[in-house]
Amino acid sequence: MEIGAHKVAMNAPSGVSELERLIEAGTFDPAAIVASIGKTEGNGGANDFTRGFATLSYQLLLARFLECSPEEVGRRIAFVWSGGCEGVLSPHATIFTRKPSSAGGLPGGRLALAIEVTRDIRPEEAGTMAQVEEVAAAVKRCLAATGITDPADVHYVQVKGPLLTPASIADADKRGKTLVTRDPNGSKPYARGATALGVALGLGEVEVADLSDAIIAKRFDLFSPVASTSAGGELKNCEVLLFGNSASASGAFRIGHAVLADAIDADGVRAALRDADLPFDCNPTRDDADRIAAIFAKAEASPTGAIRGRRNTMLSDADINYERHARAALGAVIASVTGDPAIFVSGGTEHQCAPSEAPIAAVVRV
Amino acid sequence: MEIGAHKVAMNAPSGVSELERLIEAGTFDPAAIVASIGKTEGNGGANDFTRGFATLSYQLLLARFLECSPEEVGRRIAFVWSGGCEGVLSPHATIFTRKPSSAGGLPGGRLALAIEVTRDIRPEEAGTMAQVEEVAAAVKRCLAATGITDPADVHYVQVKGPLLTPASIADADKRGKTLVTRDPNGSKPYARGATALGVALGLGEVEVADLSDAIIAKRFDLFSPVASTSAGGELKNCEVLLFGNSASASGAFRIGHAVLADAIDADGVRAALRDADLPFDCNPTRDDADRIAAIFAKAEASPTGAIRGRRNTMLSDADINYERHARAALGAVIASVTGDPAIFVSGGTEHQCAPSEAPIAAVVRV
Amino acid sequence: MEIGAHKVAMNAPSGVSELERLIEAGTFDPAAIVASIGKTEGNGGANDFTRGFATLSYQLLLARFLECSPEEVGRRIAFVWSGGCEGVLSPHATIFTRKPSSAGGLPGGRLALAIEVTRDIRPEEAGTMAQVEEVAAAVKRCLAATGITDPADVHYVQVKGPLLTPASIADADKRGKTLVTRDPNGSKPYARGATALGVALGLGEVEVADLSDAIIAKRFDLFSPVASTSAGGELKNCEVLLFGNSASASGAFRIGHAVLADAIDADGVRAALRDADLPFDCNPTRDDADRIAAIFAKAEASPTGAIRGRRNTMLSDADINYERHARAALGAVIASVTGDPAIFVSGGTEHQCAPSEAPIAAVVRV
Amino acid sequence: MEIGAHKVAMNAPSGVSELERLIEAGTFDPAAIVASIGKTEGNGGANDFTRGFATLSYQLLLARFLECSPEEVGRRIAFVWSGGCEGVLSPHATIFTRKPSSAGGLPGGRLALAIEVTRDIRPEEAGTMAQVEEVAAAVKRCLAATGITDPADVHYVQVKGPLLTPASIADADKRGKTLVTRDPNGSKPYARGATALGVALGLGEVEVADLSDAIIAKRFDLFSPVASTSAGGELKNCEVLLFGNSASASGAFRIGHAVLADAIDADGVRAALRDADLPFDCNPTRDDADRIAAIFAKAEASPTGAIRGRRNTMLSDADINYERHARAALGAVIASVTGDPAIFVSGGTEHQCAPSEAPIAAVVRV
Repeated sequence: MEIGAHKVAMNAPSGVSELERLIEAGTFDPAAIVASIGKTEGNGGANDFTRGFATLSYQLLLARFLECSPEEVGRRIAFVWSGGCEGVLSPHATIFTRKPSSAGGLPGGRLALAIEVTRDIRPEEAGTMAQVEEVAAAVKRCLAATGITDPADVHYVQVKGPLLTPASIADADKRGKTLVTRDPNGSKPYARGATALGVALGLGEVEVADLSDAIIAKRFDLFSPVASTSAGGELKNCEVLLFGNSASASGAFRIGHAVLADAIDADGVRAALRDADLPFDCNPTRDDADRIAAIFAKAEASPTGAIRGRRNTMLSDADINYERHARAALGAVIASVTGDPAIFVSGGTEHQCAPSEAPIAAVVRV
Repeated sequence: MEIGAHKVAMNAPSGVSELERLIEAGTFDPAAIVASIGKTEGNGGANDFTRGFATLSYQLLLARFLECSPEEVGRRIAFVWSGGCEGVLSPHATIFTRKPSSAGGLPGGRLALAIEVTRDIRPEEAGTMAQVEEVAAAVKRCLAATGITDPADVHYVQVKGPLLTPASIADADKRGKTLVTRDPNGSKPYARGATALGVALGLGEVEVADLSDAIIAKRFDLFSPVASTSAGGELKNCEVLLFGNSASASGAFRIGHAVLADAIDADGVRAALRDADLPFDCNPTRDDADRIAAIFAKAEASPTGAIRGRRNTMLSDADINYERHARAALGAVIASVTGDPAIFVSGGTEHQCAPSEAPIAAVVRV
Repeated sequence: MEIGAHKVAMNAPSGVSELERLIEAGTFDPAAIVASIGKTEGNGGANDFTRGFATLSYQLLLARFLECSPEEVGRRIAFVWSGGCEGVLSPHATIFTRKPSSAGGLPGGRLALAIEVTRDIRPEEAGTMAQVEEVAAAVKRCLAATGITDPADVHYVQVKGPLLTPASIADADKRGKTLVTRDPNGSKPYARGATALGVALGLGEVEVADLSDAIIAKRFDLFSPVASTSAGGELKNCEVLLFGNSASASGAFRIGHAVLADAIDADGVRAALRDADLPFDCNPTRDDADRIAAIFAKAEASPTGAIRGRRNTMLSDADINYERHARAALGAVIASVTGDPAIFVSGGTEHQCAPSEAPIAAVVRV
Repeated sequence: MEIGAHKVAMNAPSGVSELERLIEAGTFDPAAIVASIGKTEGNGGANDFTRGFATLSYQLLLARFLECSPEEVGRRIAFVWSGGCEGVLSPHATIFTRKPSSAGGLPGGRLALAIEVTRDIRPEEAGTMAQVEEVAAAVKRCLAATGITDPADVHYVQVKGPLLTPASIADADKRGKTLVTRDPNGSKPYARGATALGVALGLGEVEVADLSDAIIAKRFDLFSPVASTSAGGELKNCEVLLFGNSASASGAFRIGHAVLADAIDADGVRAALRDADLPFDCNPTRDDADRIAAIFAKAEASPTGAIRGRRNTMLSDADINYERHARAALGAVIASVTGDPAIFVSGGTEHQCAPSEAPIAAVVRV
């Protein structure tokens, strides 16, 4: 396969004009679009509607080009949005295209992307081993689809899954089923945690023997360093986007990743760039930076309430949610290295790296 | 003179225990304290009372050690607080001590600090040339007190001055005086701008001929790159803290400064450290960082609403004030270079550097 | 004419299911819809995108029923949204239908509604007499369309108009035109004020001789007690919705209004209901309340910072905008009288009632 | 005993000038002050430092008048603050004085107030029956102290108790003790719930047989309709303030209470006033209102997310905490009935009234 990556700025959650221009200029075939991953300028919380507004706006635009219904666009293309452009973070989307290609066999491989969905996850399965196993199976299907044989070649796995909602809780009650929690917001850690463990299991990073319902969102020494998961009330099944370098892929991009020790770990940012085969001394030059196509990272407040021994106020602030503090900080640190504030930084790291650490991946033009 | 700098963490706006420990351990003589510059964990806005709470708490502690009234402590020691610990920023205070010393003549000089106050500024003078000239005179007195003859040896001038309040506006009305504005919050740019121009005039960075009431908070090509000013309703006069390197100073510290091109300018942070004679390749090592005693910087949202060509949402966000976005971003970038989140980052840069640029100063142990 | 009013709850800014149900149940003819006035659950600020999301969602739904494009729906139907459901305020829309009718001549008349638009207002005209006069002319066209001869029969005039945006400011600069202000947010009072004075002039509540560019957003003793105006960056022209009681109207509704002395003026709420011919002692019973079809009110923080001699913190709060405090308070007071939290309360009262007062209108089933 | 109640406005959390004036004017003897209950203008969350600032400021003022240390003032006088002046709520304190008096036997009795503290509550006891029983015993001591024999004469019991903090959790871990939760903020419902059940047990409103660790913050059909409890990290023991009408009390005040069905229950407000023997038709006149000395109420977001069948956004709002929405709404509704925005409205009603209901008490001049 051949993967293309195109970053488009957004002047609002409904701002699709830059993608429209690219398509009208013939930069790429809209029928080749398989996924979009981006940031919208909402608050990132339960009442952040900018994600839904952006999805609807992009579906309407692409329905026009693809001459199909917006719903059909939704079935063909995976839309992943993280709300919250704190600090310097800039609203944007990275559009991924995929074309069949017989080329390949390039040294170190090239960026490959596979997208697989699970069956619908029932409310009583959310945050349980049933969900872990469904995601693990989808991850394995992604490996096969990308032709990646060594899990070490996988650098970023984005999973979107359902969380519990008043409606799904009522449904489970009607059928007399028990749930991991009855608090919709409280179900997020379970939902994000179970899908992250599904990635870890699918990639062989954890042993199934170590897993059980009891350890989900509890035993945080079990994790995947390449998982990035989110949960949303609008979903019924899980959507898995697996990125890696594959010998059977051609194209202009490679991907790498690293682990961020904390929200100010500039060395971690540099390590991710180098892991994607972007060589530089000290810090990237303008020319080096021009080769960076996309950055995907998770930000989290340290559970200790401190970074490098200094207390911060992320967890005690009743005005600004801790995820917003964390995204503002990490987003600025990454941009200070790459020179581009249009990066994907989202929150919530249950079973994604060790506690207080976070994953970062970089897509770089060869 | 010999200047000492002691950074103390604060576990709350009233958290004085670390300073108490240092004094009880005999680390320095409380009678030598002349100033405190720190961050408190409020919102940084008009209803941020953490600054007043911190001042009262420190005055009560020091009144005990100095066996005088809290009011007397207030007269002896300058307290400068910036509210708002966004992102990784850590609540703390840097305590400055000053002792007479006949030593000096060291190559490049050593950190010197002088503190001078102006007469009370009448409401109708706030934001006008009258205030500019009073501050300029205080700056000149500071130069004399530090024995600094070349303004190029001045690296950081912190000024606190009054802003207009409902009470001071009423007083001016009673006396039939006109004001630069009748909006208390709207008077901040004038108050910060006039004191910054006072620094520029006192240091000879601008010509008095170019100055007039009409250009204050208007002609932003006139500025001081070493001024850092704030305005508060509790003040009647202006308090000037001038930091520089003086041949007549001894002690363990030197200061340097640089200009930040934007909120993600890590090179600017490194330049300030090097300007303070901290040499390093690439980025400071842990040992290099251990020599950094204090960082003082200003953060501002770019008036263009964009950084490096990427739009951000600082100015349009109705939930989080733009100054909070800017402090969160710059604070994290600085901490990613120095390794210490306990740094002084405040907002509002009228006539302090060119528009969208901001000043940064570093105090480094020799 | 015969006017219908249908209140629909919204489970999200995109929540159109209740209107869909009403139309599918044949409750009314979607082709008869002329306007929608509602509240969405955003922050009510410059970055509140819930209004645009709601408009797009309703246009898509109605395009399906009316078998036309969403753009065509936008041309046929006026959508007025106020963002910000603080306190108990409930997201909803009141859908107004209009049918021709030869009936009429009923005692006291019946609810009539006319909608007129002005020509596009150029940036340099925003907040000036040019805008005042265009709105006044549209108001007079509305009077003719409703057959209302006595302005005293007009109880509510909602006007949406443009505000200055970075784009429109740039356009004016290109043509060398001067503007009332260069601050987009700062243009809101001028834009809301000029359209409100347009209503006052159109209804003969002020003399044209007293009006000039200089008094707009300045001389607040000139106002209309029935105007409710808003400004949005998405508009180029002004849209006027005039509500009153007309002898030539039939239908089941009457409208009345009153003036709120402050944000806790329950007597003012009761006065508006009685003015719409809803009689009751003390407070409305459940049966009385069932006759209330819609409430439209403006909320504002008192410029004195106090209500009934007690200071409040609306204007000094840096975390929550004063308009949000005011809507939360007034919305709850109105709901405590009517028993229904689904009411329209928006902010900004320049030239709409005297300073610190605010307009309230009630639509009641006969 | 003879109880006095004096409401003082606060121009800031440190604003003690009005109390200073009253004392200097000889309005009452500062040595007679036993309690202060008030609102401060913070955010009401974990990082609201306005409560501590107000306590310190009042202790310093009274230490001057009482010629003792601020710590001694803290031992003599109970300070109860609720942070968060949303909507129209006005920062203030109601100062209660108590003098011995042989008078009494007045019809219906007069306002009596007793204050009792429990022993320190160990972390492992927080939110357990141990805490319930200690509070119940303190309530019984209060009944004896006020000479109230019939619990029906008790109308308001304010309890302040400890919550779990990182420090107290660490202490319990060191001693190998288990806790109801390890989440400091998550311990609030347990802490507030256990102290409320302590009130219910002390007043005989619940049977001890129905109580156990398992039902605390779970079985909400067990409650006291006159309890108002809060939890703070600064406390080690529980402080109980019991208000009722006693035959052995003299003085100018009586107290009454009612239950609020929801945040817009104006009838509930009127019922509380009438229960305190303030008679009026419809709504209180200005003269009636002048007899109201203080209002104490709890505000809570409805667990259903709706009021009177209309959805509100209190629980889903990530920008403004639900307690702030609820206080803004209820505070305005109460003020619309009493005409005075200086009222005590706080959040969190576990085991205080039935779910979604809330207590309200009124102190009225005879």
